[in-house]
Amino acid sequence: MTHAPAEAEKSIKNVAVSRTPFVVPGFRVGAASSGMRYRNRLDLALIVADELQGVPGAGVFTRNRFCAAPVEVCRERIEKGPVRAVLVNAGIANACTGEEGLDLARGMTKLAAQHLGTGEDAVLVASTGIIGQQIRLEPVEVTMAELVASLRPDGWEDVARAIMTTDTVAKLAWTQVEIAGNTATIGGVAKGAGMIAPDMATLLAFVCTDARVEPQVLRHWVREGADRSFNAITVDGDTSTNDTLLVLAGGASSNPTLSDTTSGESRRFGHALSAVLLDLAIQIVSDGEGATKLISIRVTGAPDRASARAVALTIANSPLVKTAFFGGDANWGRIVAAAGRSGVALTPERVALYFDDLCVFRGGTPLKGDQIEAEATRIFSQKEIRVGLDLGLGDGEFTTYTCDLSYDYVKINADYRT
Amino acid sequence: MTHAPAEAEKSIKNVAVSRTPFVVPGFRVGAASSGMRYRNRLDLALIVADELQGVPGAGVFTRNRFCAAPVEVCRERIEKGPVRAVLVNAGIANACTGEEGLDLARGMTKLAAQHLGTGEDAVLVASTGIIGQQIRLEPVEVTMAELVASLRPDGWEDVARAIMTTDTVAKLAWTQVEIAGNTATIGGVAKGAGMIAPDMATLLAFVCTDARVEPQVLRHWVREGADRSFNAITVDGDTSTNDTLLVLAGGASSNPTLSDTTSGESRRFGHALSAVLLDLAIQIVSDGEGATKLISIRVTGAPDRASARAVALTIANSPLVKTAFFGGDANWGRIVAAAGRSGVALTPERVALYFDDLCVFRGGTPLKGDQIEAEATRIFSQKEIRVGLDLGLGDGEFTTYTCDLSYDYVKINADYRT
Repeated sequence: MTHAPAEAEKSIKNVAVSRTPFVVPGFRVGAASSGMRYRNRLDLALIVADELQGVPGAGVFTRNRFCAAPVEVCRERIEKGPVRAVLVNAGIANACTGEEGLDLARGMTKLAAQHLGTGEDAVLVASTGIIGQQIRLEPVEVTMAELVASLRPDGWEDVARAIMTTDTVAKLAWTQVEIAGNTATIGGVAKGAGMIAPDMATLLAFVCTDARVEPQVLRHWVREGADRSFNAITVDGDTSTNDTLLVLAGGASSNPTLSDTTSGESRRFGHALSAVLLDLAIQIVSDGEGATKLISIRVTGAPDRASARAVALTIANSPLVKTAFFGGDANWGRIVAAAGRSGVALTPERVALYFDDLCVFRGGTPLKGDQIEAEATRIFSQKEIRVGLDLGLGDGEFTTYTCDLSYDYVKINADYRT
Repeated sequence: MTHAPAEAEKSIKNVAVSRTPFVVPGFRVGAASSGMRYRNRLDLALIVADELQGVPGAGVFTRNRFCAAPVEVCRERIEKGPVRAVLVNAGIANACTGEEGLDLARGMTKLAAQHLGTGEDAVLVASTGIIGQQIRLEPVEVTMAELVASLRPDGWEDVARAIMTTDTVAKLAWTQVEIAGNTATIGGVAKGAGMIAPDMATLLAFVCTDARVEPQVLRHWVREGADRSFNAITVDGDTSTNDTLLVLAGGASSNPTLSDTTSGESRRFGHALSAVLLDLAIQIVSDGEGATKLISIRVTGAPDRASARAVALTIANSPLVKTAFFGGDANWGRIVAAAGRSGVALTPERVALYFDDLCVFRGGTPLKGDQIEAEATRIFSQKEIRVGLDLGLGDGEFTTYTCDLSYDYVKINADYRT
């Protein structure tokens, strides 16, 4: 962190992010139907930089030890050099597929590289869908000409649709930021499969910008942005084998190249990128499998940021807390009890709990009264609920976003595979 | 550990544990209805040692920072001296109740002490039920004479019933063990509220034995037994504010007092105690809220026991894994993916996964075939399922027990409080 987290958070909140269709100058994108697993829907997407030599790219990937073959391919290639294109398929995750899967992932990039007339190493790949099945190259090969022909500057909505699995809505977000008098665009798509979960091969996000940014600066802001967005959300605490965030910086804007992470210009860019990533992340949570409510959990007064994060995520992942939200039950007891088992050395007497702006617990005991109970119940009937937990110990803080745990979550997941 | 874990595990498995009514010589127990919160049911229980000076006791308590008032009282007293009695109420947990709650918990013990003619410090107390509400002493005071009058050697089933909250069955377990030619009995009760959860004020267990055991030896075996039983089960990963295990050793048997933890006699006693605790723990999981299946997850080949435990609990607490069990979906992908995010440095190629004795995953990829699929589906239709995961790295192992995540779990917990 190059600045106070609270200041950055405020700055990110002030960025106006739109979910309408957009164009990022310097990139063409498209989608097609290969029929590899799904029928009669888009299932292949391609993002291509106009710049034939490729552009700077940065990525954040799953930390799951069982990472998918395409993640391995991206990890190998993204540190090495510029990126020309990203190829994505939905339906089969190419995870737990051994050496054969790795060959097939590379094979996918080769097919795209041939059609684009670029080096194979400049093509990245991502997959989402069922795990343990091999993808088939033949449908990709047959569809590649059509996919390349579909490329156009305003094809992002098709890309967003093509990468969906059990998502119920396509997820797009974009913004514009002034850098030394030049306008730069940052826009992208994401899919959460309705959930942050392993066998859905879950969270994919692809974001492009026309800003000129040095690779190491881009990497810095992508890491920080991921930390504030995708790494701050949880549906069920599960981490996919395939989680992939890729950000490409094409350079079609005329801004002086961002070469540090401390200047006002660079921070403005970084915060705008964070805002786009956070908006995509919130769309993912809102579309969580079976989700009926969006809940933000903001922990303040922690000894440090890591402690605040541990408390926030323990609360957000508690099935008891999540079912209470689903039931509209303003159950403060489950929230403080989850905080109490987070491993952070709390002092119960110093803890204060808020629902929106209503204090419901302070000094080790709940605040009583019919009015408080009525107001808490009203807040819990909302579609969006803010939970605030102040530990009264230090100035560490962290905000996480989650959704409730409903009958539909169980229904969707009790029989996904078959 | 004073011996190889695998040897101990085998020895514990060989102990015959019964769930029928029993008597532990040297103890009288009883229950009564105070009406403090529940109507027309037993809600107060009392366990009393015949020995007027009290007997050695050992306890294991919740690590939740928001621990309930009765837990604080037990912690203060159990290390200090002998225990004469344990008083338990169901309906109100006396958690998050501040100084007033602490006074009331002590007040409960005072009432029992007066009626038993013993010192207040020799009486322990435990509570279960809703949190954030104060208990009332008046119903306890009014009922105490009736409660004391109910004491009898064979009252354990009433005790088991009196401490239930959302449990659907009373939980009893007992066994007998030979110590140097003398028979000793170990028997007790538990409640899980259908779940291991904070606002149910959850897991309570009270076990008595007539064996003669020195206090520090008893503490050793209680700690080890808890580690193999209550600390090895999970319904939803939540830890109660009230979790309490108390074990009293009355000494009515004529065995030579156990004064070390390494002799064969002492180990036999320790393993018998572990077996009773494990049986109670398994009863709790089987009666988990909404549970339809009992699942054991045995992780072997881990670098050490702590790693094995981390992997086992990550799998057991994964909502995706638990919903797959509910749906009867032999979803090996969710299990290996959960293992992959446990924080343990796995090597995917070395991992092997078994359902009962059927290998379904090995060498980084699933084993394919209609026969394997059919057999896996058959196993997943059983009421009890054994999952085995070998990491192929070392000799650390750990077994955890859990249940599935069903519609009823959501139903029960979406609206418990109101």
